Amino acid sequence: MFALRSIAGPVRAPACAGSRHRCVVVRAEGINPSIRKSEEKVVDMVKVADLPTPKAVYCRCWRSAKFPYCDGAHVKHNKATGDNVGPLVIDSTPAAAPQ
Amino acid sequence: MFALRSIAGPVRAPACAGSRHRCVVVRAEGINPSIRKSEEKVVDMVKVADLPTPKAVYCRCWRSAKFPYCDGAHVKHNKATGDNVGPLVIDSTPAAAPQ
Ligand code: FES
Ligand code: FES
Repeated sequence: MFALRSIAGPVRAPACAGSRHRCVVVRAEGINPSIRKSEEKVVDMVKVADLPTPKAVYCRCWRSAKFPYCDGAHVKHNKATGDNVGPLVIDSTPAAAPQ
Repeated sequence: MFALRSIAGPVRAPACAGSRHRCVVVRAEGINPSIRKSEEKVVDMVKVADLPTPKAVYCRCWRSAKFPYCDGAHVKHNKATGDNVGPLVIDSTPAAAPQ
């Protein structure tokens, strides 16, 4: 799972000013914990002619061990976090012929 | 930006046991703050025959106002968080004829 680290510990942020309650602001971290972090931006280009299967499933959760393909890791991520993300399916099967 | 909320405030977690330092554990939240949250799992099916443009750009950052398409929102997300996510481009242009 993607552990969030509070870089410099909790801080009193402007958003907390005047709050009588304990107020901790955690800066959002990225959504990609580990995939191709040496790349400035992970962009993938898929040529339709090269699709590996007629219905190719591409990851959008950044947790797949087979990125850019989906390996089902979104299920664990959703369960652990209450999230609702899932893949993009590219369907290159020919349209059915009209009857 | 996707604000992370510490649901019940910082907690002493098992990972902190024995630590002499201040230790705050924040549970990872989802990566999709707002897209189609009424759906249990956001899966999109793209038929190649229906691609809107020869090079169609699909969002993987869950920040696009035009989801499932990319609208460039990953740039702001990456800048705000230090992340490196980007879209999936589906290229349906015909292969160049051999010379
Ligand atoms: S493994 Fe990432 S969307 Fe399925
Ligand atoms: S807007 Fe999400 S990847 Fe571009």
